[in-house]
Amino acid sequence: MFESAELGHKIDKKTYDRQAPKLRADLLDAQFDVGELRKFPVIILINGVDGAGKGETVNLLNAWMDPRHIQTHAFPPPSDEERERPFMWRFWRALPPRGKIGILFGNWYTDPIVNRVMKKTKNADFDQSLEEINRFEQMLADEGALILKFWFHLSKDAQKKRLKALERDKDTRWRVTQADWDHFKIYDRFSTVSAHALRHTSTGVAPWIVVEGADEHYRSLTVAKILLDAMRKRVDQEKKGVRRAAFSAPPPPSMSGRDLINTLNMKLALTKKKFDKELEKYQGHLNLLSRHPKFRQRSLIVVFEGSDAAGKGGSIRRITGSLDARQYGIVPIAAPSEEERAQPYLWRFWRHAPRTGRIAIFDRSWYGRVLVERVEGFAEEADWMRAYAEINDFEDQLVRNGAIVAKFWLAITAEEQLKRFKEREKTRFKRFKITEEDWRNRKKWHAYENAVCDMIDRTSTEIAPWTLVEANDKLHARIKVLKTLVERLEAALEE
Amino acid sequence: MFESAELGHKIDKKTYDRQAPKLRADLLDAQFDVGELRKFPVIILINGVDGAGKGETVNLLNAWMDPRHIQTHAFPPPSDEERERPFMWRFWRALPPRGKIGILFGNWYTDPIVNRVMKKTKNADFDQSLEEINRFEQMLADEGALILKFWFHLSKDAQKKRLKALERDKDTRWRVTQADWDHFKIYDRFSTVSAHALRHTSTGVAPWIVVEGADEHYRSLTVAKILLDAMRKRVDQEKKGVRRAAFSAPPPPSMSGRDLINTLNMKLALTKKKFDKELEKYQGHLNLLSRHPKFRQRSLIVVFEGSDAAGKGGSIRRITGSLDARQYGIVPIAAPSEEERAQPYLWRFWRHAPRTGRIAIFDRSWYGRVLVERVEGFAEEADWMRAYAEINDFEDQLVRNGAIVAKFWLAITAEEQLKRFKEREKTRFKRFKITEEDWRNRKKWHAYENAVCDMIDRTSTEIAPWTLVEANDKLHARIKVLKTLVERLEAALEE
Repeated sequence: MFESAELGHKIDKKTYDRQAPKLRADLLDAQFDVGELRKFPVIILINGVDGAGKGETVNLLNAWMDPRHIQTHAFPPPSDEERERPFMWRFWRALPPRGKIGILFGNWYTDPIVNRVMKKTKNADFDQSLEEINRFEQMLADEGALILKFWFHLSKDAQKKRLKALERDKDTRWRVTQADWDHFKIYDRFSTVSAHALRHTSTGVAPWIVVEGADEHYRSLTVAKILLDAMRKRVDQEKKGVRRAAFSAPPPPSMSGRDLINTLNMKLALTKKKFDKELEKYQGHLNLLSRHPKFRQRSLIVVFEGSDAAGKGGSIRRITGSLDARQYGIVPIAAPSEEERAQPYLWRFWRHAPRTGRIAIFDRSWYGRVLVERVEGFAEEADWMRAYAEINDFEDQLVRNGAIVAKFWLAITAEEQLKRFKEREKTRFKRFKITEEDWRNRKKWHAYENAVCDMIDRTSTEIAPWTLVEANDKLHARIKVLKTLVERLEAALEE
Repeated sequence: MFESAELGHKIDKKTYDRQAPKLRADLLDAQFDVGELRKFPVIILINGVDGAGKGETVNLLNAWMDPRHIQTHAFPPPSDEERERPFMWRFWRALPPRGKIGILFGNWYTDPIVNRVMKKTKNADFDQSLEEINRFEQMLADEGALILKFWFHLSKDAQKKRLKALERDKDTRWRVTQADWDHFKIYDRFSTVSAHALRHTSTGVAPWIVVEGADEHYRSLTVAKILLDAMRKRVDQEKKGVRRAAFSAPPPPSMSGRDLINTLNMKLALTKKKFDKELEKYQGHLNLLSRHPKFRQRSLIVVFEGSDAAGKGGSIRRITGSLDARQYGIVPIAAPSEEERAQPYLWRFWRHAPRTGRIAIFDRSWYGRVLVERVEGFAEEADWMRAYAEINDFEDQLVRNGAIVAKFWLAITAEEQLKRFKEREKTRFKRFKITEEDWRNRKKWHAYENAVCDMIDRTSTEIAPWTLVEANDKLHARIKVLKTLVERLEAALEE
């Protein structure tokens, strides 16, 4: 893995001085094109051994390009707001928007590698982390990011020399700490673990670039040249409008005519009396559970999807009616904002991941990708096809961090919807609930039904199952939602 | 202050049941209008004595209106990200955007009142806090917010009864804590301090509404009715397009023709040799200071303003060239994003307030309000006139939190600007620096000069002074900036 980076690459000062000014001008030019196009972000990862020039390179890139459009992030110990969310939250937070360059110094590779070096994790955990990273980077690439992963390497001998040299110079002495020497002692183990990581995460869309760090001139020109070529190539492609093809066939509609939705028993209903009794019972339970001491270390994420007029709002109010308003937040999902559109599509949901002890209720959600965006053609087939796996990954991270994820599909029949639309048009304080778009969506009923069935098949997981709610009868639906939540919470808090 | 709220107001169940449904429908309707207009946010503050129904009212508002468009915030002990920023940062973070309702439960009043009750602060500090709150709320109102401040009151006797009643019921027992009884013991003092706070912060734009909290029906109908009327009145005004008038005369241009800018000695210059020597010296100092142990508890905010082509970018690069890229962030200010436009104009700068130990460099800044927005007419006179005081308040809060605020105006002559524009058009990697707009702005040279002089007169404060930089000679300008920063940091860290 590191063989070519121990050859003693050197570039003399004269060559450097001749090449640097042009490279610098070209880089600035390419950065400008990236900023003008605003089609993709450039994500630069900086990793490697101590003393191999990581910091210097980051500073060089900031000096050579326009630092106003570079966002450099280092990752000191996480803040409490970060600790209470999944591991990746802080990195999502630091992603550059389209058109900008983000330099991530110490990133999602650091913890997995260091924990394995320190033997805090086993090989299987390590490989699992690397696999997750691969999926994450694949997603970033699919979302358009240009990813450059630089690994700065020094041979054991070179590292020792470099640390000693830094120590000798009074201006750089401060940069060598005891931690650096401690790391040096485990050079071999660090090297083995890193090589393993690099091998398993060097993918087609995000390959590692190993750079020998001993010679500043070589290091600087190498990184600058690679970055320049990558930006230029990508800008050219964007200008030519190169498109990716869909690789897989989309899921077929049910051949028998039977599907998850049309086999639901839509006759299920409750009497008002039974409803009132059950409502009191489950709201009481839910309230108690929300104040359960164990819940302070967990969080609850409730997702509502359903046809228009399926009764999402009413179900949500029956939940919030039993909670303290200080504990929950409702996230109504409409069209993404400008800042959200400049990021991967899951970004706007990551930003609402709740802290521990909190409840987040999503009125529509990340599933829009495989529902409305699929059916209306806002997302290309390749994009919504990959979304199933990406969403499962997202939820897996939430659950591993302690979240209880409950997802509800509120199903009504086409006839019931029509009835409700007409009622809404008549009722004054419901008038805002019915728009032209609702009538348009109705015409694609079957396409939506297919999309819903695919969504449930592909994203109803053991850790985050879907609950299908027969919602023609509002009373039945509301109780089923509450009961499910109570059961999920009870099971989770009794663990 | 509280007399009318100790009269034993009551509304019987029958009256309540008759009035509630209509009020509820009307509130939902008004909320919808607010959301459709998207012209102003509704900010509801909930304060008062324990047991007076604050929590219940918040839950009621969430139940009666559409909770998806209400953002309820309580403020538990601040997170570390909040603690490292000015006191008000967490409240800025929680402000609802235009079109939404924000319920702030425990807000900017809590700490000042509690600290005074507990005698952690003196009367003078308390009054100063209240004064600051008045200015903050005035700003919110000027920015368009509809502010409703509810104070829930109970007589001493009523509070005791209420706490006992809550304790007796097994379903509500959990809500009475030792803290509530501790608070009860200091009822009189709390009452005196609160009355003082209410008297001093009941302003025309944000008056207090004291609500007797003992009777649930009375309390609920009262709050709902007041909120409804306020929203309706405001919606009507917006629809009619009622505009506020400017109250004060704008500052006059200099009558003698002499001003701060045209009396600068624009001949100041450095030789390349002197520059190189000084650059090395001050960059070295700056680097040392950025790593000073005391700086870990401070932060540095550098603001650059100047005519187009005055050399802001070059000056910034000479600063960042001496720093570690992990420590600073550059915030280039262009047009606000959609999310930023939905908030008071200072919101987008508050979100970039740096944590301790960090450096934030603003390439253009909040001063846009009194420069480009004033000159180009993007802000009304009343709005940019009030901005001077608002900006001083903002910077005062930053400084009190430990920030060192350094502001630079880079001045060049009209002739020098013309020369630079022409150069830029010729140089390949500078081409992106010159746009049509730059040529347009040039025509308003004198209007800008007036605005700059007013800005400096009104916002160059002892705690956050402006430094005027003669920037016809780039070398002189860059050294003056670096030297100033070094001196400011040295003075601050030696304190």
